[in-house]
Amino acid sequence: MTGTSPSSVTPQTTPLFTRMVIVGIGLIGSSLARAVKQHGLAGQLVLVDADPAARVRSEALGLGDEVTGDVAAAVACADLLVLAVPMRAFPAVLSACAPTLPARCIVTDTGSTKQSALKDMLAHLGGPERLIPGHPVSGTEHSGPDAGFASLFEDRWCILTPAPQADPVLVDRVAALWARCGSRVERMSAAHHDRVLAITSHVPHLIAFTIVSTAQDLETATESEVIKYSAGGFRDFTRIAASDPTMWRDVFMSNQEAVLEILQRFSEDIALMQRAIRWGEADTLEQCFRRTQAIRRRVVEQRQA
Amino acid sequence: MTGTSPSSVTPQTTPLFTRMVIVGIGLIGSSLARAVKQHGLAGQLVLVDADPAARVRSEALGLGDEVTGDVAAAVACADLLVLAVPMRAFPAVLSACAPTLPARCIVTDTGSTKQSALKDMLAHLGGPERLIPGHPVSGTEHSGPDAGFASLFEDRWCILTPAPQADPVLVDRVAALWARCGSRVERMSAAHHDRVLAITSHVPHLIAFTIVSTAQDLETATESEVIKYSAGGFRDFTRIAASDPTMWRDVFMSNQEAVLEILQRFSEDIALMQRAIRWGEADTLEQCFRRTQAIRRRVVEQRQA
Repeated sequence: MTGTSPSSVTPQTTPLFTRMVIVGIGLIGSSLARAVKQHGLAGQLVLVDADPAARVRSEALGLGDEVTGDVAAAVACADLLVLAVPMRAFPAVLSACAPTLPARCIVTDTGSTKQSALKDMLAHLGGPERLIPGHPVSGTEHSGPDAGFASLFEDRWCILTPAPQADPVLVDRVAALWARCGSRVERMSAAHHDRVLAITSHVPHLIAFTIVSTAQDLETATESEVIKYSAGGFRDFTRIAASDPTMWRDVFMSNQEAVLEILQRFSEDIALMQRAIRWGEADTLEQCFRRTQAIRRRVVEQRQA
Repeated sequence: MTGTSPSSVTPQTTPLFTRMVIVGIGLIGSSLARAVKQHGLAGQLVLVDADPAARVRSEALGLGDEVTGDVAAAVACADLLVLAVPMRAFPAVLSACAPTLPARCIVTDTGSTKQSALKDMLAHLGGPERLIPGHPVSGTEHSGPDAGFASLFEDRWCILTPAPQADPVLVDRVAALWARCGSRVERMSAAHHDRVLAITSHVPHLIAFTIVSTAQDLETATESEVIKYSAGGFRDFTRIAASDPTMWRDVFMSNQEAVLEILQRFSEDIALMQRAIRWGEADTLEQCFRRTQAIRRRVVEQRQA
């Protein structure tokens, strides 16, 4: 089901939220802050970060109306709370919010795994009708408040995985937020999200981190040589492997089952390739390589390249 | 040892070769043809391709002074022969050239593996003093005469792996060709080249082909979903996996030993990651992910990003 922009209900010039709080001012949090400002989506935008350096940068960059380290105070009158911290920090942030969070405040997030997000929200907040985890499928290899930009979400998909008991009206409001940031919005179950993202994002990142690490351990090629000749393909893996280590550690810890399932299949497939190379089975290789060409054309056609 | 541009010997406006023949008008062959024309590096540029469609396109694009399917006639008065066909075609092309190739004609190539190139040249031509295999470490995922462009080699490395008995004067002439196309030129043994490129290019390509293939076989995520959410990392793999299947088949067939060695190490490393995920060893993951960040900075600094 594709979400629709509720432009018939809410005029495009009206803020969608009165007081919006974003916790975590990294690449995603700061990009969302910029997009919210640019499109006038919140009456008041409050940014929270535990790291004083991130707060100083956010103030200098003018990213929010208020920048604070006190999450409990920040959420007291909020009608939208967005968690944009690494997933392992969710329980601590949610339990800090619980005492002051208004009962009708929508709670969403931007984390890369959704079953664990929903589980954490349910455990610390309850009130499942306003729990609407989300995942903007976009990013770069850069981190921190300086790395963000308002157009990061444009033409990218944002997946919402509302709690089964979520209020459809509130889900529509979160969908409208992302639509007005330029995203295309999709809804699905958290379990399905985690399986799909394991193949389109989590395992590709793990493979990139791993092959770059394998290269660093070689005795037969120096690190300088590996860097020098990286234009042969390796450079693309180094870009992916430069992504935020803390965030990715938490992704793998919170989507174990789906990641291990894909990894197992990938290992079998790589063993087949290995065997084909060892025994000189050129046709096996070529068949595999021809098959994968078509998928690229569709990625380009759908403007996800 | 870095090759130097022999500008003190040859003025930059003089062609380096009287009659240069490029066999294979694909991405690399047609890019080289465009660069040679643009920089005036050959008195006469002759393009050879067995495929009539490639010849028609090359004539339409005005890529060479002569376009032909007859390699024996083309090389008769040549002073430089460049093989830019998939590596499995080397023996056939070289044996077709052998009867008419002038004894002093330099023979080079653009193939991705160098031990097999040198072996094929020695087997079919002899005269090792003029055998100078080469590998421009550059490319895109596109194929064919229309995909080439003159600046493809600029700021990229070109590796020369001359036969041990090669004449240094002739090696300098090939180095000058690539330097005047904008490349930085390096010389090393064919065996060392094949080991270094196994990690910087061959195994990354194999991994990309494989994970895209793994994704196509999933029952839990549709191909449409995989494409839709590819911006999470998968899209970079689809780009690499769109590279020319025939060329890549031949790369793996001709660099078996080094590729299998790297694949084995990679499989061990991925098994370690898999185990860390299964047992919730967050620190093991984070340590690996932190380590790989630094390498990206160096790739960017050295303008290979």
